[in-house]
Amino acid sequence: MTRTIVASATREIIIGFDQPFCVIGERINPTGRKKLAAEMIEGNFDTVIKDALEQVAAGATMLDVNAGVTAVDPNATEPGLLVKTLEIVQNLVDVPLSIDSSVTAAIEAALKVAKGRPLVNSVTGEEEKLEAILPLIKKYNVPVVAISNDETGISMDPDVRFAVAKKIVQRAADFGIPAHDIVVDPLVMPIGALGDAGRQVFALLRRLREELKVNTTCGLSNISFGLPHRHGINAGFIPMVIGAGMTSAIMNPCRPQEMEAVHAANVLNGTDANCTYWIKKYRDHQPAAAGAAPAVSVPADANGGGRRRGGREARRGAAG
Amino acid sequence: MTRTIVASATREIIIGFDQPFCVIGERINPTGRKKLAAEMIEGNFDTVIKDALEQVAAGATMLDVNAGVTAVDPNATEPGLLVKTLEIVQNLVDVPLSIDSSVTAAIEAALKVAKGRPLVNSVTGEEEKLEAILPLIKKYNVPVVAISNDETGISMDPDVRFAVAKKIVQRAADFGIPAHDIVVDPLVMPIGALGDAGRQVFALLRRLREELKVNTTCGLSNISFGLPHRHGINAGFIPMVIGAGMTSAIMNPCRPQEMEAVHAANVLNGTDANCTYWIKKYRDHQPAAAGAAPAVSVPADANGGGRRRGGREARRGAAG
Repeated sequence: MTRTIVASATREIIIGFDQPFCVIGERINPTGRKKLAAEMIEGNFDTVIKDALEQVAAGATMLDVNAGVTAVDPNATEPGLLVKTLEIVQNLVDVPLSIDSSVTAAIEAALKVAKGRPLVNSVTGEEEKLEAILPLIKKYNVPVVAISNDETGISMDPDVRFAVAKKIVQRAADFGIPAHDIVVDPLVMPIGALGDAGRQVFALLRRLREELKVNTTCGLSNISFGLPHRHGINAGFIPMVIGAGMTSAIMNPCRPQEMEAVHAANVLNGTDANCTYWIKKYRDHQPAAAGAAPAVSVPADANGGGRRRGGREARRGAAG
Repeated sequence: MTRTIVASATREIIIGFDQPFCVIGERINPTGRKKLAAEMIEGNFDTVIKDALEQVAAGATMLDVNAGVTAVDPNATEPGLLVKTLEIVQNLVDVPLSIDSSVTAAIEAALKVAKGRPLVNSVTGEEEKLEAILPLIKKYNVPVVAISNDETGISMDPDVRFAVAKKIVQRAADFGIPAHDIVVDPLVMPIGALGDAGRQVFALLRRLREELKVNTTCGLSNISFGLPHRHGINAGFIPMVIGAGMTSAIMNPCRPQEMEAVHAANVLNGTDANCTYWIKKYRDHQPAAAGAAPAVSVPADANGGGRRRGGREARRGAAG
């Protein structure tokens, strides 16, 4: 059984096929958040702190930490800022962290100060990346996210994306890094632009699990980019990727609809033993207010669920 | 490609792997609804009419029609009552119907008056049932739901349930009934009682699709029987069974959370071409009221979704 171990100073988490889905909180990331970027450049980490606390309170299993505030000279600014951000977060919360940067020097600087066993996010199939990142993964004995693109970009052909993932796993093995420390991101395309995006990912996830036997992750909300009511699409996508074998995702844990989908899929996937978490969390659940209620009145739920099965059984006994 | 054709007098629907998920409205069923049973016995069909209209308005693809008002003498009462109920419903709405009874005489009586091509619900692997129902299926050239239990009851072993389904398909072939007219119900157990119920069904659905190449259905809400917040479990289960290959379900279409899961899964499964249905339905979607909102304030959605991918791309270009 494939198990990727990540840890903070005090808490160890296993990512695996038999484990609850690993929710990697995406919020601490200034990319596309101008205000946050400006704050971080000024040395103001109030939003980082707020995002860290809120995500853990909302049920994040891990937190991604990204300090890519600028594309102007990231090699100069990012190492120091990533270290500072990481230290603030790891002194604040006890969940394992993901060190997220495209700057190799920033990843190494963060690895030097990180407690526990962080996840590195990420390596790709690009030769330069493989040569830069894999030695660090080996040296610090940490797991890494492997994104299925290479010098040619992101292929629209899922077989090519699988081949890139396989190449990364093989190259990692050459460095002495086991497959269970590679978490493959098969790359999720927006379904609004590519109608086959869902089925591509489901097929890729099955192959990654059955052939490469690796854990997997993705930037989850990409799937709904450009569509209305994105939470609904995301919440449908989560059970589908979990059913197809995905074991983690980089997502926003502060979205109740998406997190409910994660919790339901854990129940259905058999990783919430005895439905313990579900029952504790939703025992006193009240149906949503008017906006989400059915347009017409229907009888209470209690009769509904066992009816069909109970009815069939009862009638079969009586009527033969 | 497996295609099960059902039809009303004026509308034809295809159940198939490449089709939107077929929602079979379950409400017209007096089993477990004492008030409805009493009304139907008295010849009062107000609730039947209301349930028919509401379910179609809510988006049901088909309606199940059951008139099993009593277990005392169903052989005497059910044929007449089922015919009457069916005629009322088929004169009221234009969706295809499912004739649901455990009384063979009631099924035949309904088949005689049904317009179009109804689905018969159901046959089992019981010898007596096979001998009674399959000749009717052949004679009236209609599709049938095949429930995976036999004289020994419902097996807890999914391999046995698969074997029962296979036996029914083979027996049907002996009668000249093609596999594409058999819609297998693999039987869904409550996950609260059987922690493996989800994974059993997912594995069965894959085998039914890949080995027997049949369409499938289930009594969907059985999965959540006994758990709190059943809609959440049901809404997570729907994308998972659709991902595993299920092509229809007997369910309550008047539940918006479950129907949203169906619509999202159709998008993700590639059966809502160009997301046309989703965009039309949710274009003006407003987030639910306070009860369902995140506990903490987070920035608007617009920034969130494309960020990760855009960010990676942007940073990769800039920082190498």
